Amino acid sequence: MIKLTSSSLPAADDHTLPADEEVLSRLHAHPMSGWLGLPQSQVPELERMLREAERIRCAAQRLLVIGAGGSSLGARALISAFGKTDAGYPEAVFWGDNLSVVTARRILERLAGGDFHVILTSKTGSTLETLAAFRCVLPLLREKYGEHVAEHITVISEPDTRLHSFARESGAGFFEFPKNVGGRYSVLCPSGLLPAAVCGVDIRALLDGARAQAGRTDTALRFARERVGLFKRGFTNEILACFEPEFALFGDWWRQLFGESEGKNGGGAYPSCVTYTRDLHSVGQYIQDGVRNLYETFVLFEKAEGTDEIPQNTAFSDGLDTLNGKTLPQLNKIAADSVIEAHKAGGVPVLAVTLPDYSETSAGGFIMFMEIAAAASCFLVGVDPFDQPGVEEYKKRIKSGLK
Amino acid sequence: MIKLTSSSLPAADDHTLPADEEVLSRLHAHPMSGWLGLPQSQVPELERMLREAERIRCAAQRLLVIGAGGSSLGARALISAFGKTDAGYPEAVFWGDNLSVVTARRILERLAGGDFHVILTSKTGSTLETLAAFRCVLPLLREKYGEHVAEHITVISEPDTRLHSFARESGAGFFEFPKNVGGRYSVLCPSGLLPAAVCGVDIRALLDGARAQAGRTDTALRFARERVGLFKRGFTNEILACFEPEFALFGDWWRQLFGESEGKNGGGAYPSCVTYTRDLHSVGQYIQDGVRNLYETFVLFEKAEGTDEIPQNTAFSDGLDTLNGKTLPQLNKIAADSVIEAHKAGGVPVLAVTLPDYSETSAGGFIMFMEIAAAASCFLVGVDPFDQPGVEEYKKRIKSGLK
Repeated sequence: MIKLTSSSLPAADDHTLPADEEVLSRLHAHPMSGWLGLPQSQVPELERMLREAERIRCAAQRLLVIGAGGSSLGARALISAFGKTDAGYPEAVFWGDNLSVVTARRILERLAGGDFHVILTSKTGSTLETLAAFRCVLPLLREKYGEHVAEHITVISEPDTRLHSFARESGAGFFEFPKNVGGRYSVLCPSGLLPAAVCGVDIRALLDGARAQAGRTDTALRFARERVGLFKRGFTNEILACFEPEFALFGDWWRQLFGESEGKNGGGAYPSCVTYTRDLHSVGQYIQDGVRNLYETFVLFEKAEGTDEIPQNTAFSDGLDTLNGKTLPQLNKIAADSVIEAHKAGGVPVLAVTLPDYSETSAGGFIMFMEIAAAASCFLVGVDPFDQPGVEEYKKRIKSGLK
Repeated sequence: MIKLTSSSLPAADDHTLPADEEVLSRLHAHPMSGWLGLPQSQVPELERMLREAERIRCAAQRLLVIGAGGSSLGARALISAFGKTDAGYPEAVFWGDNLSVVTARRILERLAGGDFHVILTSKTGSTLETLAAFRCVLPLLREKYGEHVAEHITVISEPDTRLHSFARESGAGFFEFPKNVGGRYSVLCPSGLLPAAVCGVDIRALLDGARAQAGRTDTALRFARERVGLFKRGFTNEILACFEPEFALFGDWWRQLFGESEGKNGGGAYPSCVTYTRDLHSVGQYIQDGVRNLYETFVLFEKAEGTDEIPQNTAFSDGLDTLNGKTLPQLNKIAADSVIEAHKAGGVPVLAVTLPDYSETSAGGFIMFMEIAAAASCFLVGVDPFDQPGVEEYKKRIKSGLK
């Protein structure tokens, strides 16, 4: 289970905020809370997903995941953290979330050699960047596979979209994006699970971990309350900090989850991420000494992996004899403890979310924990966690620019 | 040359701030302003760097760049934006900026097959993560190359460091990290140039672009003044936004440059980055509608590349006939214009830094522009752009934890 620690004193009960029962009842009553049930509702589809993943793995050296936002960030994070890199697992390539011709050229070049399979994800079936990327890759698919193009495409969308019709008519694979799950809460539906499974992520363990955590809403609610309390005290910047670079892509997923859920009506903590120790050599100085409107949420792992000692430097005397006999996980933990203490001393409130270990089960718990916390944070301050009215502003301008 | 546009009214002269001449004179007088002269001072070393790059390219399928902070972020950005991916150019792998055993295992696995070369960079020769990574890779180097290990290592550091002695005694390659250039201002010295050259980046053009821009300090100073003015008006979060994902890694470089230079004494804009259109589906909602303490600095390219029309969708009717006859650069420009207008309408001050085109020459100009702007921003508010007192806090705790 996820553990939460906080450097603040126990938050005094803020009676202006709704009670936990009230928050939970709003959460369960919301029509877009379908993600809470994904760890159960996806189980019947699991076998079919694993078979499709196996089929794709056998046929392709590269997996092209075309999708934007929630149809991309979750899959990216899962594959970065747990994807297998052995022969037999395809290399994942992500597209459909930008309009750059530089990116387009590089991706088409990379796909030109060898076989590839496309997973095309759009909840509504109408995402501009996603459909534009599909247009760009289609000539290559036809060139490579002629009449058999559909065998190299798997579609994920709500039922009754253009994409669904295409899949039905062409014979491309199809998995359903549930109507009662929004993009940023969708990592545990096929948009996250299928690409992850292709790359060897244990999605069954992921769902198990999420299911177990879904039954423990108390910690997530406490995290939400701490966050809202910090915001009210002027800490308007939240920084997610992680000492595991391969796990750090969950930061991009988390940034969408909280930024899009909470960033409304002039409120919400501005979410950004750091990867340590890398960013100790970057924004670390700022976090220690800059404007005091920021707090840090650390993502830590209880049980460290690996017992190999760091080898000694046999080439020259590097002045680091204190490393002798230590393992990397020991060193990483010393760094984490040191940074947390230093930042606290610099006036940065620190929250720490500790996962039991570096595994899919723990990641599933982390996902569910953060999703509940994001929704609860919104219910606490009275905004809808599941809409995104602000994104209409630029979309209507693009539409008019395209005429 | 770099162009700057601002959505604010022309900043009223703030007479509490030092005048441009004063800022420039402090800049030129500072002992750590050696980076201003790098476009000239690196020229004599250029031939030797290009020869070393050619030697590395011929001998290695992978280039392992071991370095942290300024010894890594600049090289990463250059290689992401301009590195060649054709056969004959090694794949770049970056390490030495974290202590994760998960990362260590993945990197050592990747290096196990084929030949690789190490560029080992540490200004002081004593960076903990960098030396720890070198310890971890050394057994593999010995296993592969036996007595010839030194031929597969190039060192970049200040003269008279442990690393320099090692290079001198072993016969490993060596390039000098100038004493009067700090890490975050060092992308135009060998720590940035050599790895970039190995991966096919045109470093001569890069230096040419930087040299030309160094002669035009006025635009960078205006940018610094706009930034400081915004900060004084309560805009304490600066977001760097770019519509080119391969260029967006300059965001990490920029974040160190500004965060470490300016984030002191409780001041400085907190720097974070977005890559569009990806993050329109992520923190876009927040930027449009969240707390109004943020401003956006867009990095744009004047001349778009490529004239190929987006292919039509021959597989199904995707509802996007408005894309027919348009190119990706046209579409990307419509998106950029739309986002800028939408965010302005949402109360976000917008600065736009426009590069002539997507090229090494322009990137050199961009680097020099941002370096001058970072230093000038600091001189305007009276902090030293070239120290980083806050990073001692965690370092002294790590040191004590290692005992």
